[in-house]
Amino acid sequence: MMNEIKSMPAPLILPDSVEITEVGPRDGLQNLGLFIPTEKKIQFIGLVKETGIRHIDITAFVSPKWVPQMRDAAEIVAAFPGEEICYKVLVPNRKGLELAISAGVKEAVAVIGSSEAHNKNNVNLTVAESLAELVLMAAMAKDAGIIIRANIATAFGCDIEGRAPCQRVLGISQELAAAGYAGITLCDTTGVGDPKLTYELCSEVLTKVKNAQIGVHFHQCRGFEFANIYAALLAGVKMFDSACGGLGGCPFAPGASGNIATELLVQFFSKLGISTGVDAARINDCGKFAAQLQKDFYLHAV
Amino acid sequence: MMNEIKSMPAPLILPDSVEITEVGPRDGLQNLGLFIPTEKKIQFIGLVKETGIRHIDITAFVSPKWVPQMRDAAEIVAAFPGEEICYKVLVPNRKGLELAISAGVKEAVAVIGSSEAHNKNNVNLTVAESLAELVLMAAMAKDAGIIIRANIATAFGCDIEGRAPCQRVLGISQELAAAGYAGITLCDTTGVGDPKLTYELCSEVLTKVKNAQIGVHFHQCRGFEFANIYAALLAGVKMFDSACGGLGGCPFAPGASGNIATELLVQFFSKLGISTGVDAARINDCGKFAAQLQKDFYLHAV
Repeated sequence: MMNEIKSMPAPLILPDSVEITEVGPRDGLQNLGLFIPTEKKIQFIGLVKETGIRHIDITAFVSPKWVPQMRDAAEIVAAFPGEEICYKVLVPNRKGLELAISAGVKEAVAVIGSSEAHNKNNVNLTVAESLAELVLMAAMAKDAGIIIRANIATAFGCDIEGRAPCQRVLGISQELAAAGYAGITLCDTTGVGDPKLTYELCSEVLTKVKNAQIGVHFHQCRGFEFANIYAALLAGVKMFDSACGGLGGCPFAPGASGNIATELLVQFFSKLGISTGVDAARINDCGKFAAQLQKDFYLHAV
Repeated sequence: MMNEIKSMPAPLILPDSVEITEVGPRDGLQNLGLFIPTEKKIQFIGLVKETGIRHIDITAFVSPKWVPQMRDAAEIVAAFPGEEICYKVLVPNRKGLELAISAGVKEAVAVIGSSEAHNKNNVNLTVAESLAELVLMAAMAKDAGIIIRANIATAFGCDIEGRAPCQRVLGISQELAAAGYAGITLCDTTGVGDPKLTYELCSEVLTKVKNAQIGVHFHQCRGFEFANIYAALLAGVKMFDSACGGLGGCPFAPGASGNIATELLVQFFSKLGISTGVDAARINDCGKFAAQLQKDFYLHAV
């Protein structure tokens, strides 16, 4: 099998700069069994704020019955009234959005699954029913004068239905953008993505959804996750989710994978000459802080 | 920062099939402190052979004083006289090549560092002196009627000199190909590579070195290694080194990274729809076997 390359391949274009959304305080902490004191969370978000990161998912307005870790959402929001940074909160439905608006948030993130099976499991709605809910939420956000974004869960596929058809994800993205969603994040919820699919899906969505910022959210996945990030960069994605210390999932359960560690993501972009505006030393400190939180508040099975 | 993409980016071309070189029996075992009995090594190589892998680095003809783990090189070679599989042995110099030829090998792999500092540390020669040695070795191999290949160590840079200039690596590759080397493997010895550099260097070498098969050898590197492999694929590389179980480095020393695990590499290519001819279940078993070897024969510091 000799080389068959005759002429120099085209240079691959990478963006000059990207934006990182720190999701640790929300996606990273929600699975920890022990309640983290509100002041610890505020300390964590405060440290992240100092790194230069401009987007932080700070909490979620979800039922305290289902996610007791987030029962202090309103207090967290009250602690971060700033304008310079996009402090986002996750809202699963109109009820959550209503609470978030009452608490004074400026930016909310709704969620929809692209897989029927996963969406049913998650929120007990069909994808079409979820879409209808998200359209109503966009109207509520507009009335309240706040920005709304959406996470598309299982955008790369799920363990139940397999690979997600690009056209379905594209269709959902287009409907959300038309409804007024300012940003759409394609989430590889269960770590099934690969760089080929990532490039194809991101290219498709980026070129056909004009009026929303497109981001990606990958989890740790046997070391394949940075190949996915590289593929997303090549497709033109400029917005990346990650969590300090690789928070999320369960560090003690094989197979349950955390988010991409923000400090590693910053290193990766730096190696590629891509600017993030994030201070490397400070984000490393945040990574250590987050790892300690995970260690201190993880409820060990006995 | 809104999307600026107007038209669909070009599809990225991936090869239909690639070849994997299993380096575990050589690169993976050499650092283990306890001597692995020859029959265990033979068992390991035999298991790898059954997976469908066509290239295996089985041992090294190095000084038993420096690498006592490889003192049974001639016995290993005698155990694998087959023609269907490329059983390769590492040879650091003419002396090693002479021993390898006497033992009856059909394929040898020489080594040269692209960094002056690293080459000096490794073999106490300048890069030019090493090149002269490798040219003489190519002539010896030709006389003996065996195939010779070369590994370029620190081809992506090293901790002492930083990033390797592409032109230097290209120059060495061209001289080796002209001297008769059938294959040249660009090795990221210390895990400093990134996908941008990988794409540039591989594109450069693949297009300008016509008469040698070009391969890459990456180590585990904070999860960036699969991004490098993906970039190498995009540049047209079709030959990849890896070691079952991620052998190599030291599993107990932070910072010392092993090779890419062959079983993961096979999974990665499979996800991308790239054929390797390797049986997934069998290579997983080899990974477990290798991990057990590493566990059993690692000399714990006390």
